[in-house]
Amino acid sequence: MTTTQTRGTEAVQRYRRACDYAAAAMIYLKDNVLLREPLRREHLKPRLLGHWGTCPGITFLYGGLNGLVRRTGQRALLVTGPGHGAPAVHANLWLEGTHAELDPALSRDGAGLAELVRRFSWPGGFPSHLSPEVPGVVHEGGELGYALATAFGAALDKPDLLVACLVGDGEAETGPTAGSWHATKYLSPRTDGAVLPVLHVNGYKIASPTVYGCMDDEELTAYFSGAGWSPHVVDVTRTDDPDALLAETLDLAHAEIAAVRERWRPGERAVWPMLVLRSPKGWGVPEHDAGGEPLEGTFRAHQVPLGGVHEDDAEFALLERWLRSYRPEELFDADGRPHDDLLACLPAEALRLGRVPEANGGRLRRDLPLPDLAPFAVQVPEPGSGSTSATWTAGEWLAELVRATEDRRDFRVFCPDELESNKLGAVLEATDRGFTWPLPDTAEHVAPGGRVLEVLSEHLCQGWLQGYLLTGRHGLFPCYEAFASIVDSMLNQYAKFLKMAGEVPWREPVASLNYLLTSEGWRQEHNGYSHQGPGFLNNLLTKKPGTARVYLPPDANTLLVTLRDCLASTDRINLVVAGKNAGAQWLDLEAAERHCAAGAGVWEWASTGGDPDVVLACAGGIPTVEVLAAASILRDRAPDLAVRVVNVVDLLSLAPADRHPHGLADEDFEACFPEGVPVVFGFHGYPSAVHQTLHGRPDTQRFHVHGYREEGTTTTPYDLLVSNRMSRHDLAADALRRTGRDDTAVLAERDELRAAAHRDGTDPEAVTGWRWGA
Amino acid sequence: MTTTQTRGTEAVQRYRRACDYAAAAMIYLKDNVLLREPLRREHLKPRLLGHWGTCPGITFLYGGLNGLVRRTGQRALLVTGPGHGAPAVHANLWLEGTHAELDPALSRDGAGLAELVRRFSWPGGFPSHLSPEVPGVVHEGGELGYALATAFGAALDKPDLLVACLVGDGEAETGPTAGSWHATKYLSPRTDGAVLPVLHVNGYKIASPTVYGCMDDEELTAYFSGAGWSPHVVDVTRTDDPDALLAETLDLAHAEIAAVRERWRPGERAVWPMLVLRSPKGWGVPEHDAGGEPLEGTFRAHQVPLGGVHEDDAEFALLERWLRSYRPEELFDADGRPHDDLLACLPAEALRLGRVPEANGGRLRRDLPLPDLAPFAVQVPEPGSGSTSATWTAGEWLAELVRATEDRRDFRVFCPDELESNKLGAVLEATDRGFTWPLPDTAEHVAPGGRVLEVLSEHLCQGWLQGYLLTGRHGLFPCYEAFASIVDSMLNQYAKFLKMAGEVPWREPVASLNYLLTSEGWRQEHNGYSHQGPGFLNNLLTKKPGTARVYLPPDANTLLVTLRDCLASTDRINLVVAGKNAGAQWLDLEAAERHCAAGAGVWEWASTGGDPDVVLACAGGIPTVEVLAAASILRDRAPDLAVRVVNVVDLLSLAPADRHPHGLADEDFEACFPEGVPVVFGFHGYPSAVHQTLHGRPDTQRFHVHGYREEGTTTTPYDLLVSNRMSRHDLAADALRRTGRDDTAVLAERDELRAAAHRDGTDPEAVTGWRWGA
Repeated sequence: MTTTQTRGTEAVQRYRRACDYAAAAMIYLKDNVLLREPLRREHLKPRLLGHWGTCPGITFLYGGLNGLVRRTGQRALLVTGPGHGAPAVHANLWLEGTHAELDPALSRDGAGLAELVRRFSWPGGFPSHLSPEVPGVVHEGGELGYALATAFGAALDKPDLLVACLVGDGEAETGPTAGSWHATKYLSPRTDGAVLPVLHVNGYKIASPTVYGCMDDEELTAYFSGAGWSPHVVDVTRTDDPDALLAETLDLAHAEIAAVRERWRPGERAVWPMLVLRSPKGWGVPEHDAGGEPLEGTFRAHQVPLGGVHEDDAEFALLERWLRSYRPEELFDADGRPHDDLLACLPAEALRLGRVPEANGGRLRRDLPLPDLAPFAVQVPEPGSGSTSATWTAGEWLAELVRATEDRRDFRVFCPDELESNKLGAVLEATDRGFTWPLPDTAEHVAPGGRVLEVLSEHLCQGWLQGYLLTGRHGLFPCYEAFASIVDSMLNQYAKFLKMAGEVPWREPVASLNYLLTSEGWRQEHNGYSHQGPGFLNNLLTKKPGTARVYLPPDANTLLVTLRDCLASTDRINLVVAGKNAGAQWLDLEAAERHCAAGAGVWEWASTGGDPDVVLACAGGIPTVEVLAAASILRDRAPDLAVRVVNVVDLLSLAPADRHPHGLADEDFEACFPEGVPVVFGFHGYPSAVHQTLHGRPDTQRFHVHGYREEGTTTTPYDLLVSNRMSRHDLAADALRRTGRDDTAVLAERDELRAAAHRDGTDPEAVTGWRWGA
Repeated sequence: MTTTQTRGTEAVQRYRRACDYAAAAMIYLKDNVLLREPLRREHLKPRLLGHWGTCPGITFLYGGLNGLVRRTGQRALLVTGPGHGAPAVHANLWLEGTHAELDPALSRDGAGLAELVRRFSWPGGFPSHLSPEVPGVVHEGGELGYALATAFGAALDKPDLLVACLVGDGEAETGPTAGSWHATKYLSPRTDGAVLPVLHVNGYKIASPTVYGCMDDEELTAYFSGAGWSPHVVDVTRTDDPDALLAETLDLAHAEIAAVRERWRPGERAVWPMLVLRSPKGWGVPEHDAGGEPLEGTFRAHQVPLGGVHEDDAEFALLERWLRSYRPEELFDADGRPHDDLLACLPAEALRLGRVPEANGGRLRRDLPLPDLAPFAVQVPEPGSGSTSATWTAGEWLAELVRATEDRRDFRVFCPDELESNKLGAVLEATDRGFTWPLPDTAEHVAPGGRVLEVLSEHLCQGWLQGYLLTGRHGLFPCYEAFASIVDSMLNQYAKFLKMAGEVPWREPVASLNYLLTSEGWRQEHNGYSHQGPGFLNNLLTKKPGTARVYLPPDANTLLVTLRDCLASTDRINLVVAGKNAGAQWLDLEAAERHCAAGAGVWEWASTGGDPDVVLACAGGIPTVEVLAAASILRDRAPDLAVRVVNVVDLLSLAPADRHPHGLADEDFEACFPEGVPVVFGFHGYPSAVHQTLHGRPDTQRFHVHGYREEGTTTTPYDLLVSNRMSRHDLAADALRRTGRDDTAVLAERDELRAAAHRDGTDPEAVTGWRWGA
């Protein structure tokens, strides 16, 4: 136990003692939570779960922020990176009354504290890590790396908000966090809020020393200054009044923020403050454990210190001594209510950190003013006409949406430097790329406050978007398809957040997380193998049916309808895969609306009619073209063959209706895919995605899915398709085989066309010039 | 065209002119590659593919490094982050003769150059990005972010090697790269090689300005100094002899490296040099395009400048003028051979960057001296005996492997600070965690040169391991299961590298990439939902059958056998999922060897014998326990039911034999799963992984797979299983239902046990005390 807190700021110290005590109680106790009687073994939880190490630091900051908010009236939100320090956050939420407001059982008295202490890390109770069940939380607290990016996302377009962000020195080692320090270069002092990062250096991770813990003040100051910050070190071991030092530093930081807001002019650097907080790991725990091993300030304080209390009498005695060192009897009255001086440390009710409305962003969310599609829709006099880029069309519509939200500033586009490459450049006619640091003269469409954020970091894009959505706004993440997998694990954690938030009664629905994957693998024949990979879709398919949606609109109008529906939806993760290359159009707006509403359906105009001998199914823009071309080949080569063409725009319509809410009713599925009829399926991604989605449908062995089979390089589009057995000729040949016909001639034509591409460096006119119905 | 190259270092300038010219030729020409006749449209490639912007910078560095190697004899490898600058690397490889050595058609004369130029970005030729087909490459050059980590991995345990690493300013924005700058803190000046990063600042990505391009020298110097480097700025626009400046700076850096090696003492910082290279994007391209838009130094130079050459006469004329500005006639003789003064710029043959043996690491790989398993095997007198942690057992064996490779130093463990948490701590008795920066007094098992590297960055672990493997060494990546998804996209790219490397005749097999996923979701009931997620396995299943292997050893001896086999294999990605918690053992070593060799098999001792009414199948440690407990329940409740228990250790043994090399032969599959018999399958991960693997087997609808269905929180292990319908009772109830029996009583017992866990905070003795056969 350090004994440095000797003078001043007494109430804040007592506030911290109360929170530290309550946090420790959560980890160890299920009864006698105020230690009104001597501690006995039966008061202990049978399983000790939780992480003490980071808790005192969290409360130290929480208490300091309370003071800052009290003194300044500043609206503030706290993003807590070390989510394993949940007990500290719970303790503060209980003391500030937020817990009681949302759940009367967690009242600010002995009964409420007992309930909270019991519920923590208990089956059916509060998880050991921060999660959506905890008020004030806009960030899943388990997987480390994204707190800082999330904080920036929360601050965007909230000029009156301060988003404090505690970053653990373990989390700081992650790549995504290391990349996030540069995000101030995107923050506009005019239109955005401020982010105040606090790097919490306590020296150890689970077992190893931390990288940042081994850097001295000079190194840390140089590093963060270089990244564009004004760093301040708060070292609790080098002061006799840590609270006073923190309060002074926070006041200084707040003044610096005000100065940036007031004095910054476009073209200048906006240098915001950040804090480096050094405190011993487990600060306040006994210096040594019962075996004499160092505890405070070491890795042994990370999780449950004194883990042997159930068996070891010395450890048990040490636990009681430690818990009593907080002197709870001085902090809580006879009913277990915190004394008034502790409550006086809190900001005004509405400004308490757990209650700032942005922390339950769904309450602030307003439906977007989504522009009518009709003026943007492509005219399609007949299927196969025109030559349009689907994403270009979508870009025009998105630009209008950007204009329509100019005053509200609650819609943004986050993209890894690919907006123009993805043919969404029209958006840049309506807004700029936001960027605040000095720019080269030759930069175009870049200015502070622009509502497109482009950074070559999918992690940062995703983190920004998550923070933006969870604080009540809307957004879109256009991305090269192959590189979306970079954020697979962020998607995993965000899906968990949505799933749990849906089970919390006071959480309001937030806008859906919308991916627009384009520059899809089939048209990355120029960039090659590394740019080809449709696996992000497979990852999304592992999520709860309530959360995951996968759309593969085959042309411009279906993309418009899909995007509109996705941007109107809530609490979903919508994956939209669409092409950017100019191509033929299939459905006019009315047909597109019908087709998207159904999810999948027969394209009569492309089918021969009658009971089919074979179904040609397609999902995705390129497979749709190939399947239609295959249907043409079959008309020529096997005019007697009855062929039905089915297009699937909503992949999950293939799932059995009892497994996914979008699953087609059995009779609708049968109407597309009559039992006993072979289906040759041209699919955008890995065939496994279709197979697993179909699981539970009758007779799935008749589905022969062609898709990406990890054959790729820099080549021509047709050659890439052939490599993966997904070309029109491969599909037609498969349909011939499945209906007992000879496929030799079709495969010979394929091989000839492929050889021509290898000889000439481009696909032959027979491929590139093909038009439906011609 | 800048005109700053006015004096000195003339041969190097000419060398660069030759390479820049050849690189440009690759992008535009298919004929007349030395411009011996006036340029005509038919000399142009029909599709112009490639990225010019970064090429001159790559050659500038390549040429500079050639000089350094020539002057010092230093063995050096170059990791090129901007892999889209492949033309520059090809040009240098052709000029240094590496291409000709590996492929006589790429001879160092006009014919060879014509062949190279034609092959680039041509169907069947060289891809537009760096890839395994390119000599000297140990890093897929498409997805950005991992070059620097790979370079560090290549340098480990290679004290005589200098690994230069070019990092683009776009790539520098990625999180993984930002986190990688701290890796020197892990590099031992005594036992490791040096990494010389060169941050190439050319100001633009595809369209946007770069973050690092907007930082001035003072910011960059502070940032990298703070990260522990000695930075040197080489700005080609502020000198009239860039080559001389680069040569001087490289010499200085080399001297600094020598000084670190000589003077560094344990406990001190090892401050290595790094370079910031500023040069205009597309350096050497015309200053403006035919429309008068700025070209050199802008985003317009990123990909194919003058993209309109096919249609626009002015652009075409400008292209010829640009290409002729390199005056190829002065650089190549009548036969197209480079003049002697260019060749004189090259280092000695063996030291040329493309030929350093580490760049084809399989040639250096030696089989590991894998310790005999017998002394480490667990005694299993009968199935269900003992209580052992599988990973603890594996840790003892791995420690012996670490000892056996002490002199060779070609085996390492990379782990995100979880070695002890994953019960592999025995390894730390054989070596330390490697770390070079000053440490706190309380750190344990940490020292420079230790062969365990722990950093809280899965990206860094993966990047290090990739670099280590591809330069001929061996390694293991133990990881919390849920967080392995952080490197999904790195796995994707590495799988692509392996796939393509396997098609390159001169690439020798490298050691397999081995993941040991533990702290698996079913035993993350204490950390909660964020720590539960088996999706990494699903991602691996999307890879080529030649590459992907998935093992789920159910106990200690099967884990030993599996790890030994994985560490002996080459060119695979082996995913091993195994538990760390103490538990009953099923197979003695001999049975484990047989079972692992088969991949899957009937456990007769757990089956009732005879033709089964139902098969209970299991894959994974926890599912195996639950399935065996379910079999016990069925014996008690339905003694007439014939039950067969099948355990699957090699998941891909379930795949049809014509789809995966590990697929069981039809008769062996049938011997496990007789047609017509329902299979209740307890699976470790998402059920979709089993469904997609089974696709193509007969009558797959009879497989009823229980697994993780995204229900998770902090709770008891049994409660977590019930939430996902994977408990022994859920499995037994399903077997009863599938055989037309009543499951009410079994489900009632489940609900009672679950209620008890909620009441007491722990699982009841009926669950925790269950033993097979008791």
